[in-house]
Amino acid sequence: MAEHLVKFDNAAEPVRVPTGTLLSEAARLAGVDINQPCGGQGRCGRCAVQVLEGKVRQRSTLRLSQEDKDAGYVLGCQSVVEGDVSVYVPPQDKIERRLTTDLTVAEVQVPESYLYKRDQTIQRYHLEMSPPSMDDQTDDYSRVKTALRQKADIDDIVISLPVIQKMGRVLRSSDWKVTAVIDRGYSQEDHQQVRLVEILPGHVTENDPLWGIAVDIGTTTVTLWLVDLITGEVKVQVSEYNGQIVRGEDVISRIVYASKGNGAEELRQLVIDTINSLLEAACNRMSRRLKAQNLSIDPNDVMKATIGGNSTMIHLLLGIDASSIRLTPFVTAVNNIPLLKGRDLGININPEGTVDCLPGVASYVGADITAGVLSSGMDDTEKVTLFMDVGTNGEIVLGSHEWLVTCACSAGPAFEGAGVEDGMRATKGAIEEVWINAEDLEPTIRVIGDTKPVGICGSGLLSLLAEMFMTGVVDKAGHLNTSANSKRIREGMHGLEYVVSWASDSGNDRDIVITHVDIDNLIRAKGAIFAGYSVLSDSVGVPLELVEQMLVGGSFGKYINVEKAIEIGLLPDLPWDRFQFLGNTSVRGAYMALLDRQARQRITDIASRMTYIELSADNSFYEAFMSALFLPHTDMTLFPSVAESIQKK
Amino acid sequence: MAEHLVKFDNAAEPVRVPTGTLLSEAARLAGVDINQPCGGQGRCGRCAVQVLEGKVRQRSTLRLSQEDKDAGYVLGCQSVVEGDVSVYVPPQDKIERRLTTDLTVAEVQVPESYLYKRDQTIQRYHLEMSPPSMDDQTDDYSRVKTALRQKADIDDIVISLPVIQKMGRVLRSSDWKVTAVIDRGYSQEDHQQVRLVEILPGHVTENDPLWGIAVDIGTTTVTLWLVDLITGEVKVQVSEYNGQIVRGEDVISRIVYASKGNGAEELRQLVIDTINSLLEAACNRMSRRLKAQNLSIDPNDVMKATIGGNSTMIHLLLGIDASSIRLTPFVTAVNNIPLLKGRDLGININPEGTVDCLPGVASYVGADITAGVLSSGMDDTEKVTLFMDVGTNGEIVLGSHEWLVTCACSAGPAFEGAGVEDGMRATKGAIEEVWINAEDLEPTIRVIGDTKPVGICGSGLLSLLAEMFMTGVVDKAGHLNTSANSKRIREGMHGLEYVVSWASDSGNDRDIVITHVDIDNLIRAKGAIFAGYSVLSDSVGVPLELVEQMLVGGSFGKYINVEKAIEIGLLPDLPWDRFQFLGNTSVRGAYMALLDRQARQRITDIASRMTYIELSADNSFYEAFMSALFLPHTDMTLFPSVAESIQKK
Repeated sequence: MAEHLVKFDNAAEPVRVPTGTLLSEAARLAGVDINQPCGGQGRCGRCAVQVLEGKVRQRSTLRLSQEDKDAGYVLGCQSVVEGDVSVYVPPQDKIERRLTTDLTVAEVQVPESYLYKRDQTIQRYHLEMSPPSMDDQTDDYSRVKTALRQKADIDDIVISLPVIQKMGRVLRSSDWKVTAVIDRGYSQEDHQQVRLVEILPGHVTENDPLWGIAVDIGTTTVTLWLVDLITGEVKVQVSEYNGQIVRGEDVISRIVYASKGNGAEELRQLVIDTINSLLEAACNRMSRRLKAQNLSIDPNDVMKATIGGNSTMIHLLLGIDASSIRLTPFVTAVNNIPLLKGRDLGININPEGTVDCLPGVASYVGADITAGVLSSGMDDTEKVTLFMDVGTNGEIVLGSHEWLVTCACSAGPAFEGAGVEDGMRATKGAIEEVWINAEDLEPTIRVIGDTKPVGICGSGLLSLLAEMFMTGVVDKAGHLNTSANSKRIREGMHGLEYVVSWASDSGNDRDIVITHVDIDNLIRAKGAIFAGYSVLSDSVGVPLELVEQMLVGGSFGKYINVEKAIEIGLLPDLPWDRFQFLGNTSVRGAYMALLDRQARQRITDIASRMTYIELSADNSFYEAFMSALFLPHTDMTLFPSVAESIQKK
Repeated sequence: MAEHLVKFDNAAEPVRVPTGTLLSEAARLAGVDINQPCGGQGRCGRCAVQVLEGKVRQRSTLRLSQEDKDAGYVLGCQSVVEGDVSVYVPPQDKIERRLTTDLTVAEVQVPESYLYKRDQTIQRYHLEMSPPSMDDQTDDYSRVKTALRQKADIDDIVISLPVIQKMGRVLRSSDWKVTAVIDRGYSQEDHQQVRLVEILPGHVTENDPLWGIAVDIGTTTVTLWLVDLITGEVKVQVSEYNGQIVRGEDVISRIVYASKGNGAEELRQLVIDTINSLLEAACNRMSRRLKAQNLSIDPNDVMKATIGGNSTMIHLLLGIDASSIRLTPFVTAVNNIPLLKGRDLGININPEGTVDCLPGVASYVGADITAGVLSSGMDDTEKVTLFMDVGTNGEIVLGSHEWLVTCACSAGPAFEGAGVEDGMRATKGAIEEVWINAEDLEPTIRVIGDTKPVGICGSGLLSLLAEMFMTGVVDKAGHLNTSANSKRIREGMHGLEYVVSWASDSGNDRDIVITHVDIDNLIRAKGAIFAGYSVLSDSVGVPLELVEQMLVGGSFGKYINVEKAIEIGLLPDLPWDRFQFLGNTSVRGAYMALLDRQARQRITDIASRMTYIELSADNSFYEAFMSALFLPHTDMTLFPSVAESIQKK
């Protein structure tokens, strides 16, 4: 096959690729990073590059303006090399790698009842053995087993080859005084065996920390908590964007990317890198704090990791083909992952350390939700509870200690600021709240970081939509009111739009707008979520007004304004005191499962108790969705408080 | 540190090494092979090389003659580089890599009672599942588990990540008709779990073979049998020198070599390479036979390996530090190895295939002996049985179905033809039997391969010693009779010797001799073995004449002449019909354990039932050894048949 030279302006060397190679693939080979938030589906237009010399065959030009096309811009993921080309790569949006500041650290109380000796699966034992002699030629491993039987009443233990390999050296170097780290497993029913995780020279004091991590792999953000398993305290919290984000912003884009060439392995490595970098950062931070006591912690000291995340994230993490998640009938390869070890995944905790990936329920109700239900406590209360985790997908659980039903609705990433003209993530420069003056329709905005705005994040969009509706900038159907007397409502490049900030006031010298397409997207997103919990409530015959607790998880939930969320019909019209915003419930659930074997077993129970309702197979969902494509809803009796405040105005 | 250039005449490029590097190490770096049969201890003299230019510092010159020294010969393993040197490497003895011919293939009967479904741990099940649908969104793994529950009554199964990773692809590519290969474990007591080893597309017919291998890792030779687990038949037998042999001929030399630098990893890789090459050869041979049926077999099709070998071989295979085996109080790191997988070791059977390393008893009574006891059947008979495996070490077991005692005596490698002036292995050109004319003391010899002799192998040495004794060439103490009228008894380079073949009759134009040192070595070797079984017999109060069966294992045993072995006092003086020569009992035991879970469990029972007697801590051994340093023994009443035939002459 013919080969061609592809030269990127920002690469040291041109690369040689065969006919038919995608420009995005050529870039990868050249070591040039091109963002592909849609995973290479040609939907987002963010991988556009300029062809300076030569020609490429373009499969699609979606999202390129005529102006772009005239200037030679093509989509990297949709353009095929058929001859030598020279390419200019515009500056890529940098995905900032931020560690959480103290502002985003969650308040965590160690569960009052936590007792290390009783609850923790990882246990440490001091063993002291008499050395072998001509009168006692017992082999090393039998000697350790006898000591464990005497000290810890452990009859039968599982050990892997690397631990056997190091055992003799450790025993002899420490004069037959060692610390054995064992994992006794969380479940008797699953016949989990007691496992010798590590054998360390010498004895530690009872209070020396024993380390574990709780991890939530979000599609956008990975969060890691470093936990002292003896006291149960969360010592460090760190989070960072999921390294996969450059290869797709939502789960579908990731699955598509994974299905091509070496994509799955690339994505696996990206998230492993993220976890390892967080782990190292957490250990470094902890070591600085321990320095005064002449102590330190290394990733290798971490004996256990408990991991939550949606089903796609868990599949990609484990190198399991996720394509069936995306294709009808939407099944996962596996919901209950067996216990693994650090070395199985390539994460840098102790190679023999236990990795417990929490169980999911379905393709779109994953371990993040089962962990979330645990941490919300809804599986253990008599109160009828509605639990919601709003991100790209809205996962919803309705139930109590007696029953649990769940569904997932594809809300789209609008509330995460994606797929919206001036949408952005909730970082510095994002408009996070908007108030519109009902008289002159002029907005007042609050910007993250107290700086000039450059875009609008999820909570800002929600707030903006509610204000536009309550002040008549848009009507019930979301149509912009062109007859209103405001120059902010205007015909823009992509049709009607409302200007939230003029270029002169913005941080990027551009008007920041919300277009009629954006408004449509937001209404469809909130409509999907409303339809989701309506279907659940219908399916069990429990009307929404009987919901006694409304729990909202997810980082988006933390910044939500209840009043405005009800005004647009995203949240049900319940008294405000029934709402609670729980933050990252997935990592919190993973933390509880990391600490306490009963809590871990509860997650398995939750997963098996949850009845999953597949909305795409449910006709009533489509009806409910169509009725919800209004602000707040076709049927205003469902939102009496909103009806009342409109009437007041 | 200063660096120097070392130039080997047979290497393409000189190597640069720091001051203090051994010549043998420099050779390894230069890719030049220098045999080190003693493992680099400076004992064997076989790594001698000639320094042509420059100088080295010599730690030892043992085994170098003055002539050698004058010519610049030095020991590679004992000479330290301290400046630039140029080295000539004499041609190295080639270790021939032979596969067994049909002559050395053992007769194997499939145990009559063998029933695949009942006895075999590896089982195959045809599963047929309904594909997922919107009405049944069960995940793939749960679907497989349900099918296994229905089809095979398996409630709980262990699975590893690589099998989960491939499962979805296999299920979909084969339209949900698959063959599951499971290992149900051999022991209920050890809580071994049922494991999903492999999932294969489609269904095979009931009679299609399912493959396993039985392996014996001998210090000298590795033997591998390819077995059809359905019928139990041994389809192919192959063997080859253990690749480690160039790094030490006996276990002690290997342990010494392993303790230096990267030695352990090098030895591990060498034996893994040997196993993989045997596996490939066996599969190729089988594939040629299957060709007519349009079938073939690949190493990856092998689902289980059962491995026997002495404790040192097993430690080195598994990368476990073996140094405690060599040092007082002589303990192993581990006797009972947990079940492993192909991937854990790096052997090329199915990566998920079970690897079962059989249990040993002590440093010098390993899995080769427990497997040998099983295959000899002595653990299951009422007859008092003496079992012996004579190689470099003599391992001895005495007992019956009621009791078993065992010991190991370091016989030295004399009976393997090593450490003897003209000793060699039992290959072409080796004198394998000798008759001496009592009148003129002229020998008649039989040579392997019917060619001119180049040396004497173990059975030849045994035969020669017996004939020399019975004809008076040597006396009871092993001293050569200088007053005898034969020019074959003469003063040689190393003292008195007997010429077995004149240079004119030999294949290497050299006189082939046995020296008084060789005779001493042989007497010490047979004395150690005699003392070994005497101590066992004393320890349990069962006189040797009550031994009802005398079973001899090991390849040496196959060629032994009972009469002559009794004449020199190697074997006890029992009626000849009590002797049986069993060949390689280790691979035979491994084969039985591979087939039958009850047999496998019996090996564990044998290992735990065997009482090990440490001879080096036993004063009576030393006494027994001293009394046995005569032909056949100080106390002739122990060898009445020999006394009688001497009297006759």
